[in-house]
Amino acid sequence: MTKIAIVGAGLMGSATSFPLSDNGHTVRLVGTHLDNETIQSCKEMNYHPRLKRHLAPNVTPFYIGEIAEALDGVEIILSGVNSLGVHWMGKTLGPHLQAGQTIIAITKGLEVDDLGNLTILPDVLRSELPDVIQDQVSYAAVGGPCIAGELAGRRNSLVVFGSRNQEIVDKLANIFRTSYYHVWTTTDLIGLEICAALKNAYTLAVGMATGLLEKSGGVDNSGAFMYNLAAGIFGESATEIHKALQLTGANPSMAYGLPGVGDMYVTCMGGRTVRLGKLIGEGNSYAQARMIMAGETLESVEIIRVMGDALPVMESKGLITSSDFPLMRFLIETIVNSKTLEIPFDKFFGGLQRLQ
Amino acid sequence: MTKIAIVGAGLMGSATSFPLSDNGHTVRLVGTHLDNETIQSCKEMNYHPRLKRHLAPNVTPFYIGEIAEALDGVEIILSGVNSLGVHWMGKTLGPHLQAGQTIIAITKGLEVDDLGNLTILPDVLRSELPDVIQDQVSYAAVGGPCIAGELAGRRNSLVVFGSRNQEIVDKLANIFRTSYYHVWTTTDLIGLEICAALKNAYTLAVGMATGLLEKSGGVDNSGAFMYNLAAGIFGESATEIHKALQLTGANPSMAYGLPGVGDMYVTCMGGRTVRLGKLIGEGNSYAQARMIMAGETLESVEIIRVMGDALPVMESKGLITSSDFPLMRFLIETIVNSKTLEIPFDKFFGGLQRLQ
Repeated sequence: MTKIAIVGAGLMGSATSFPLSDNGHTVRLVGTHLDNETIQSCKEMNYHPRLKRHLAPNVTPFYIGEIAEALDGVEIILSGVNSLGVHWMGKTLGPHLQAGQTIIAITKGLEVDDLGNLTILPDVLRSELPDVIQDQVSYAAVGGPCIAGELAGRRNSLVVFGSRNQEIVDKLANIFRTSYYHVWTTTDLIGLEICAALKNAYTLAVGMATGLLEKSGGVDNSGAFMYNLAAGIFGESATEIHKALQLTGANPSMAYGLPGVGDMYVTCMGGRTVRLGKLIGEGNSYAQARMIMAGETLESVEIIRVMGDALPVMESKGLITSSDFPLMRFLIETIVNSKTLEIPFDKFFGGLQRLQ
Repeated sequence: MTKIAIVGAGLMGSATSFPLSDNGHTVRLVGTHLDNETIQSCKEMNYHPRLKRHLAPNVTPFYIGEIAEALDGVEIILSGVNSLGVHWMGKTLGPHLQAGQTIIAITKGLEVDDLGNLTILPDVLRSELPDVIQDQVSYAAVGGPCIAGELAGRRNSLVVFGSRNQEIVDKLANIFRTSYYHVWTTTDLIGLEICAALKNAYTLAVGMATGLLEKSGGVDNSGAFMYNLAAGIFGESATEIHKALQLTGANPSMAYGLPGVGDMYVTCMGGRTVRLGKLIGEGNSYAQARMIMAGETLESVEIIRVMGDALPVMESKGLITSSDFPLMRFLIETIVNSKTLEIPFDKFFGGLQRLQ
């Protein structure tokens, strides 16, 4: 049995305590400073208000102020914050880490460095740790389609754990895997993280179809939706994710597996990214849509901003041309420049005419 | 302006008359013997009862008995029947064909020959034509995500036309393409047809998630669906389609473009295949589900049967191993042998453990 700390008591971090608990591990669930109400409820009533479930057995809640106690003697630390919290996570964990520990992150995102190079979040987290410990701990991440509430409900979920070290990821998979939490492993951490980030951005585009339908007057008298449009965008999205994987030397097969289309499919089933896409499809500029969704964390927007910095650098290096990533460029114009544009269908799939 | 006959007045064939009409072409819509009521309504009221729309301008309806008149002098014939009607179509068109005509099929399916080799439907249709005309006409097909009612409603639809002859498919694309009907072209007719067929089969598996949810008691008190499961199956489906394309020498990029995941996405949004999957997920054997859906055409079932004949042949030739296509094998057991089995998650993606 293993001692594991989950830092971040949001939906996904907390949900992951269920398979761990079912496997008999000892879990310490540490809220961030944003999770105080959640932790209070967990401590007082053993009830997680956001998951709408009682905690599983062997899961002990901790306030952020109790993190030293919570991290003491754990073998694995699961980073359960979103992409905006990764730097905080590195700084917070740093003083408490011990050689031999493994950090596994559920965070989905990407950053771009000063030179315009894409950086995966496990490497961002690592960069925030004290130098002396950086090479003394191991890093891993989770990808693939997994809505937290379903995992906490012990519904079948198929995910991928990634780490540059196969031994580490095998060990993690054995600890987390249950009859309903199906875990594949990969050493292609970069590919896994690129899929996890990009599917969020592209789902925003798929979500626009619902808004465009509303704008056109909704389902017509003959019952026509706009699924054809959503599906076309979905196909271009998968094609662009595949291209991004190729460009970064990652395994392109992830595009048509769990981390790519699998995760994009589940993300298209609802949530904030789809809602933002719908608002923009309805005719709102991004600035207007952002105001309507004030206060909500929109990771998809961060990823589009990152790609807005990264694509020009890739282009200047000759890695891509201006006709590559037409859908992502459209999203960049929409989000970064708050423009309301027509979808550039004719540029999809290598340009309207012959499929490449 | 071109004269075009659409043979088969079902949803998809009839819907394709809209972009053709909008481009100013002359369209003759010929019902099969199953479409007499539809054609009667079209003739008497200019109204297509299945599409729930009035015919577009320049579209003239014909009964099957008037086919000779309808086909006279047309340049293009669109075959608008489903996969069960392909042999009939070949036999019916044969006597009327003239050198230089092009047949474009919207039919999605596959057949298997006596040796267990997969055969695409344009080649099946060709084989039913008189020998003398077989090489005098051209063959093409339509793939990609396109719900008929949306196309008829002039909603944006992104599709792929395929023909072994680029000149033919370019010409067709120019005739059909409108501001809402976005047409890409490919000479990889086999790849296009494999995607079109297989996505139907695999959508049945995705649809099972809805039934399994019902069987488990439905959405739980905390609001958990089974989208994770559906998404995992979606990812394995795309992976198996990619494998099938590789095996047949087709362009594997179709798996993550319009013909593969694009078409599968739209098919997952509803319809008969999803309904059959749901019934089986709820715990019905295929035999029971078939009775509940008595009288309905289930193309997905035909494709699974075809794959049930084809996979053992591929295996005996050493092209695949018994661990390839685990989801399709599960579907074959479910449909052909009417077994009620557990989904073989652990065999997905090359086998549970390391991603390939």
